[in-house]
Amino acid sequence: MTPPARPTDGSSLLDPGGAGTPAETTTGEAAVLRALLDAEAALTRAQAACGQAPPAAAAAVTEAAADVSRFDARDLALRAVSGGNPVIPLVADLTAIVAERDPAAAEYVHRGATSQDILDTALMLVARRTLDAALADVTRTERALARLAAGHRDSVMPGRTLTQHAAPTTFGLKAAGWRSLVLDARDRLVTVRDGLPAQLGGAAGTLAAFGTYAGGRADAGLDLTSAYAAELGLAEPNLPWHTLRTPVADLAGALTFTAGALGKLAADVLVLSRTEIAELAEDGGGSSSAMPHKANPVRATLIAAAARRAPGLAASLYGSLATEDERPAGAWHAEWEPLRDLLRLTGAAATHTADLVQGLRVDTAAMRAHLGLTGGAVVSEYVAAELASRFGRSHARQLVSAAVRRAREEGRPLVEVLLETPGLEDLPPGDLDPDRRTGVAGALTDRALRRR
Amino acid sequence: MTPPARPTDGSSLLDPGGAGTPAETTTGEAAVLRALLDAEAALTRAQAACGQAPPAAAAAVTEAAADVSRFDARDLALRAVSGGNPVIPLVADLTAIVAERDPAAAEYVHRGATSQDILDTALMLVARRTLDAALADVTRTERALARLAAGHRDSVMPGRTLTQHAAPTTFGLKAAGWRSLVLDARDRLVTVRDGLPAQLGGAAGTLAAFGTYAGGRADAGLDLTSAYAAELGLAEPNLPWHTLRTPVADLAGALTFTAGALGKLAADVLVLSRTEIAELAEDGGGSSSAMPHKANPVRATLIAAAARRAPGLAASLYGSLATEDERPAGAWHAEWEPLRDLLRLTGAAATHTADLVQGLRVDTAAMRAHLGLTGGAVVSEYVAAELASRFGRSHARQLVSAAVRRAREEGRPLVEVLLETPGLEDLPPGDLDPDRRTGVAGALTDRALRRR
Amino acid sequence: MTPPARPTDGSSLLDPGGAGTPAETTTGEAAVLRALLDAEAALTRAQAACGQAPPAAAAAVTEAAADVSRFDARDLALRAVSGGNPVIPLVADLTAIVAERDPAAAEYVHRGATSQDILDTALMLVARRTLDAALADVTRTERALARLAAGHRDSVMPGRTLTQHAAPTTFGLKAAGWRSLVLDARDRLVTVRDGLPAQLGGAAGTLAAFGTYAGGRADAGLDLTSAYAAELGLAEPNLPWHTLRTPVADLAGALTFTAGALGKLAADVLVLSRTEIAELAEDGGGSSSAMPHKANPVRATLIAAAARRAPGLAASLYGSLATEDERPAGAWHAEWEPLRDLLRLTGAAATHTADLVQGLRVDTAAMRAHLGLTGGAVVSEYVAAELASRFGRSHARQLVSAAVRRAREEGRPLVEVLLETPGLEDLPPGDLDPDRRTGVAGALTDRALRRR
Amino acid sequence: MTPPARPTDGSSLLDPGGAGTPAETTTGEAAVLRALLDAEAALTRAQAACGQAPPAAAAAVTEAAADVSRFDARDLALRAVSGGNPVIPLVADLTAIVAERDPAAAEYVHRGATSQDILDTALMLVARRTLDAALADVTRTERALARLAAGHRDSVMPGRTLTQHAAPTTFGLKAAGWRSLVLDARDRLVTVRDGLPAQLGGAAGTLAAFGTYAGGRADAGLDLTSAYAAELGLAEPNLPWHTLRTPVADLAGALTFTAGALGKLAADVLVLSRTEIAELAEDGGGSSSAMPHKANPVRATLIAAAARRAPGLAASLYGSLATEDERPAGAWHAEWEPLRDLLRLTGAAATHTADLVQGLRVDTAAMRAHLGLTGGAVVSEYVAAELASRFGRSHARQLVSAAVRRAREEGRPLVEVLLETPGLEDLPPGDLDPDRRTGVAGALTDRALRRR
Repeated sequence: MTPPARPTDGSSLLDPGGAGTPAETTTGEAAVLRALLDAEAALTRAQAACGQAPPAAAAAVTEAAADVSRFDARDLALRAVSGGNPVIPLVADLTAIVAERDPAAAEYVHRGATSQDILDTALMLVARRTLDAALADVTRTERALARLAAGHRDSVMPGRTLTQHAAPTTFGLKAAGWRSLVLDARDRLVTVRDGLPAQLGGAAGTLAAFGTYAGGRADAGLDLTSAYAAELGLAEPNLPWHTLRTPVADLAGALTFTAGALGKLAADVLVLSRTEIAELAEDGGGSSSAMPHKANPVRATLIAAAARRAPGLAASLYGSLATEDERPAGAWHAEWEPLRDLLRLTGAAATHTADLVQGLRVDTAAMRAHLGLTGGAVVSEYVAAELASRFGRSHARQLVSAAVRRAREEGRPLVEVLLETPGLEDLPPGDLDPDRRTGVAGALTDRALRRR
Repeated sequence: MTPPARPTDGSSLLDPGGAGTPAETTTGEAAVLRALLDAEAALTRAQAACGQAPPAAAAAVTEAAADVSRFDARDLALRAVSGGNPVIPLVADLTAIVAERDPAAAEYVHRGATSQDILDTALMLVARRTLDAALADVTRTERALARLAAGHRDSVMPGRTLTQHAAPTTFGLKAAGWRSLVLDARDRLVTVRDGLPAQLGGAAGTLAAFGTYAGGRADAGLDLTSAYAAELGLAEPNLPWHTLRTPVADLAGALTFTAGALGKLAADVLVLSRTEIAELAEDGGGSSSAMPHKANPVRATLIAAAARRAPGLAASLYGSLATEDERPAGAWHAEWEPLRDLLRLTGAAATHTADLVQGLRVDTAAMRAHLGLTGGAVVSEYVAAELASRFGRSHARQLVSAAVRRAREEGRPLVEVLLETPGLEDLPPGDLDPDRRTGVAGALTDRALRRR
Repeated sequence: MTPPARPTDGSSLLDPGGAGTPAETTTGEAAVLRALLDAEAALTRAQAACGQAPPAAAAAVTEAAADVSRFDARDLALRAVSGGNPVIPLVADLTAIVAERDPAAAEYVHRGATSQDILDTALMLVARRTLDAALADVTRTERALARLAAGHRDSVMPGRTLTQHAAPTTFGLKAAGWRSLVLDARDRLVTVRDGLPAQLGGAAGTLAAFGTYAGGRADAGLDLTSAYAAELGLAEPNLPWHTLRTPVADLAGALTFTAGALGKLAADVLVLSRTEIAELAEDGGGSSSAMPHKANPVRATLIAAAARRAPGLAASLYGSLATEDERPAGAWHAEWEPLRDLLRLTGAAATHTADLVQGLRVDTAAMRAHLGLTGGAVVSEYVAAELASRFGRSHARQLVSAAVRRAREEGRPLVEVLLETPGLEDLPPGDLDPDRRTGVAGALTDRALRRR
Repeated sequence: MTPPARPTDGSSLLDPGGAGTPAETTTGEAAVLRALLDAEAALTRAQAACGQAPPAAAAAVTEAAADVSRFDARDLALRAVSGGNPVIPLVADLTAIVAERDPAAAEYVHRGATSQDILDTALMLVARRTLDAALADVTRTERALARLAAGHRDSVMPGRTLTQHAAPTTFGLKAAGWRSLVLDARDRLVTVRDGLPAQLGGAAGTLAAFGTYAGGRADAGLDLTSAYAAELGLAEPNLPWHTLRTPVADLAGALTFTAGALGKLAADVLVLSRTEIAELAEDGGGSSSAMPHKANPVRATLIAAAARRAPGLAASLYGSLATEDERPAGAWHAEWEPLRDLLRLTGAAATHTADLVQGLRVDTAAMRAHLGLTGGAVVSEYVAAELASRFGRSHARQLVSAAVRRAREEGRPLVEVLLETPGLEDLPPGDLDPDRRTGVAGALTDRALRRR
């Protein structure tokens, strides 16, 4: 994990999952302020590029916006209340700073824009920066999982369904499954990231003021939108999306999917780390304030916590799709913090997952040993199938059930009991070896690993 | 709307939005039972196609599964409790029916499969059938919206932000925006529909039993998966996805997105149908039990209700991603009803939206009249911009604010007051006409309509 | 479990948790129709009681409403679409039936009421009937848990935190904790049940029409509300609550609390039923379609699934609090199905929990055996505390950590290693016995059991 | 609103609703740190009170914990990651500070406790402090609403259902309804606040270590729990509630209820502030960055946004009820931030609501004028009821429908048309005055105002 920037601007005592992660930095107050200023500066530069502002104004605004330290995020936040968003006071301060150096340039700050143009664009920048960081961790995870899956292609372990041993599987297949989910997450994140659009619409989404400022040139707003998006490296929107919230909904979906996908891995790690199971262990498990002997699966815990929280945040964001008018009274405002939280949670979970997977300890001996816990019943699916060919399914099932019951009652291995059953004396005992009953786990693992 | 099949099998007294819609039919008990039987029959046919079952068995199972009336859904449901899913009793009944005609074929019912293979596959069939119907309604909606947008390309109306008139826009742009969201929904639904996978894994997801039944042929399960998916017209999965729930999560995202997108349209219709606004009206609004004069926007109401419910259901489904083991104890079971409900809600909302949009009445005179409600202040963005060029932004803003205030106090049109302001006497009054202040609404509408 | 009424009217193939439970019956279509008719009949009877209708009319409406079989729920559902709720067609049909026998009485059907008066009241009746049934199961659960807690007051087992053995506890304390949650649930359900109000307000919540029908008597509506509530055995509301949705929100809270409380118990049963742990087992665990040996914790699984779904449904209901006007366009309609689903899910979970707890098998030998899994480290909290008194906390912690490490490396019991440590030779080995290290688990259990 | 403390410690650029409110302060990083230290100090003081620690130790720990500035919240947050919670590093730092002055006292820091004891207790303190502040604002709101309701007891306005004018009501009744919800919220908040419990259980919830430190005195932990709760002014828990999360769930319910109740008021204000309606206006509506004339209902917008977000957060908290073991791996950690967010959102919404209501401007003339918008049809419920007495309901309904239609077509007042209808010539025109058709709105308002 990258060493965290020391000064933070968000709260984190109650967010050990986020503290110190790249996503904490890319979603913090300073990052939001940076993105807001980036959006303002890009707007003036885009106007200059379109001949709608003098180059000197673009330079002046860009210069003024470059120095975050001249802005007081807390003061902006407090002044945001009266208009309901932070852009109004930000424009005032930015204008004043520009005016100090170049009064004429100050005319070009935020010219023609509405607050939502800047805030939506800034959040897309925050999203892109967070997704870039998260994708690096997702890639780190995917590679570590590929190594685990390949290395444990043939490590047999109990497959568990509804908490009970069911039939043998391999840890390679499990790791390949985790990786498959991680790749699904990567694909969804990449698609969303590459489509994140700039926002530009003006007061009512018609780009009218840009035309007015451009001396009435009708399509000034369209040209400007294109230039603005290009300045920011964001996608050019087909329409202003003040109340067409596809980008936010798509982020919600991709992020909660990712949190859930990582949460699957964490859920398995938590089960398999249990004291009684101990097939997996986090490298350097977490300490306890009361019990010196404990090594807790802390990373898996933090990832699991993120996976629990993500769907509720995504639901809030999806709920803001159904929004009235050209700018809604509440639905838009309800997006900002959940979007930031979801980005931070998911990004941080990606970091912890990469660290967890890279340090995961696998105890193949424990896996193998556990295959014996059911006294051989873990291969009863095989036995039932094998016998069905001989005796028909119904009779076969009776034979197996009787044998399982008798083995349990007498405390003997299933194989012993089966070989005493009339008609089954010729069953090759080796066929009951769980190692030989993993089906196509190996082939599935190979196939899954071919996906890039 | 297609006339609804008379006999229903789901409850609907409390679901007026769903009653009688295609989605109600495609998600009802009969449809689920049909899909479960389709999955079983396809499995045996696929085995026959792979040489893992005799063709006669495939024919017998297919024939037995064809007649839903031989199965008692209620009895199956009651017997589902002991094993926690309906497939176990279904297999028993299907086997008995097959055995009546062809005892040898009965051996091939559900052979090698686990309950989840059948139930997951059946739900994917239910999803596909519902999405097919929903997409037809989405297309109907999109076309009607294209007509509305083109026909009202230049119908001026107040743009509203935070409940207040902001600046002029057009109804064409609004309709084009709705259509843009509907097309986004269509794209997401189509992507999901075309990727819905069959499920096949056997007890622990290793396809082991299929190999056993195939006399130990190692890759029997892989061949079978391919044939099974082909029989059903579903996608072939790369891995069994018993606990890799991407398909369910993707459905959750696409469906709640669609419900929200339709909900945006409904939210606007509800606002613009208000007695005081009445710019839009549903054709044949709903009646009231107490007030003979009322014509309620009932379809918009039902769509809005669906949009409110969808995110919570999607959150449940996303929450099931983080699931332990090879089959989880609860997370899987928690998916079934929310998925069905989300399919039904969204599909039904699509039907009502198509009907609503096709019959929407637009009162352009009311739209135009409302532009006068602010006494001309609706063009103050333009005025401020225009004056900024003359006097600088700060002074311009003071001039406009003063004029708006004076116009309000004196109850006079803004334009009158402005033309009396020193330095503004030459402002062409026609420039304050809202019709001329819609920016590039027309061009945006045209561009949006070029999207297919 | 009460044997289920054979004919159902809701779907349940995908709801094995609900199928056959009392809650399924009390929330089904027939139950909703019954409640709607009860509300209508009670209204006319209340009017008769207040001198606002002739007694004969009350008798006629009551008689007509008594026979559910004369109403066609499916037909009502289909006709509900045009007005957006089922009361409008229901009133038409009820009026027709009354008119057959007594045309004059038909004038008094639904007289003065609005659809929401009837539908809200009916849902409160459905809620009360479901809560009555659920509370019976909650009581059954509480009693069985009291027996378990008392019987296992001193059954020592590992306390587990973050998946790891932490320190000894008792199964009695765990069962007492479950019971404590169940009692919390009971208290909340009882409070809500006893306050469920009738709804009466008329078209706009002013009770105006009742006054008109009463010949202008001003407070006719107030008297009527009181009589109406009395007829139904519901609470009299202080105000019509068409858009003051406290009763629905309170139901949401109490029900999702209950589902979660039962879900805690199920979560523990699932963990402790794992093949490797097996300290608990459901009586008659569920079967598997593929694996004859399995005995799945099916009840716990179904309860866990309900607990996963409840919060999303409750969120929808809480979301309907913020609702506009005297009757909202969507928020009200979005309550009906989630409320029914939440009632059914929670009620059914209560039934399964009672059955589960009554048949729970406890393996105290396994619990005791597991206390040895950490080689004695499970008492390290005690050791650290004991030594802290002797050597100070910091040095004590070092001693214990070193001993734990050495015991682990050498594969020896912690007690052995500790007794070799200089300064610890006099530690009474018996003090390291987990049985003596359960703190006040017994006293806490006793105290918790005193709560009734 | 109290002037906000200048330095903040949470992020707020994206939370204009929270910035500067009391709830922001009571839930900020400093407040959490303060509460954690309060919990630690109270624990040692309680031990001293029980004779389990020397008074000097209690004094030393209390003194060290008093000065928050000696602790570095950011550093604690970063160090929280390895153990998954902030208490572990906090105890280390607190111990070091105590040891500087009194090495012997350092032995008594956090003695016998587990991290969860401190963190849960601290969150209950944060909750209590936030609820205290919120309740002050709720009371301010309730009083202002009582004045509004009394003052507008007879201010007639259109009752609106499904967006359409339905029948006359009064603004007094609407305000009384808001107040009723606010009182419901107050009652629920007070109940929860008064029951917030301290947490004390030790490593596995058996209070074992406290007994050990007390020289084996069995009930040391029970005495201590009582003293600890008394020190903090929190309720004494019946059982340690590490995984019995009733207090958190109850907070979730009361808070989301409150947010929704305030959201109802905001939803009405937003509708009635619309440009076309303008029956209500916020005092000093918010400004716009692009449109000088706008006065946005900003407070209502921020409250509405909070109401939209609360249910998703509450769902997360309710979801954490179903939690495994003696301390879960994720469910507990997933509570912290949602609980803080929900406290802050709801508390801040309470502040804004109080300010909004105190400054609400009511335009009774507009209300009255709007009653004419339907040409008299707003009293059609009355007319239908009146005529039903004369002609029977069915004929009456036809007469009214015909008159409404004719009035609409001919653009004439309904009353005129009605008086021309044969058999209705004697209808006293004054009876159609909406002022006389408000039912018992006045009496309901009076009754509601009697509630304290």
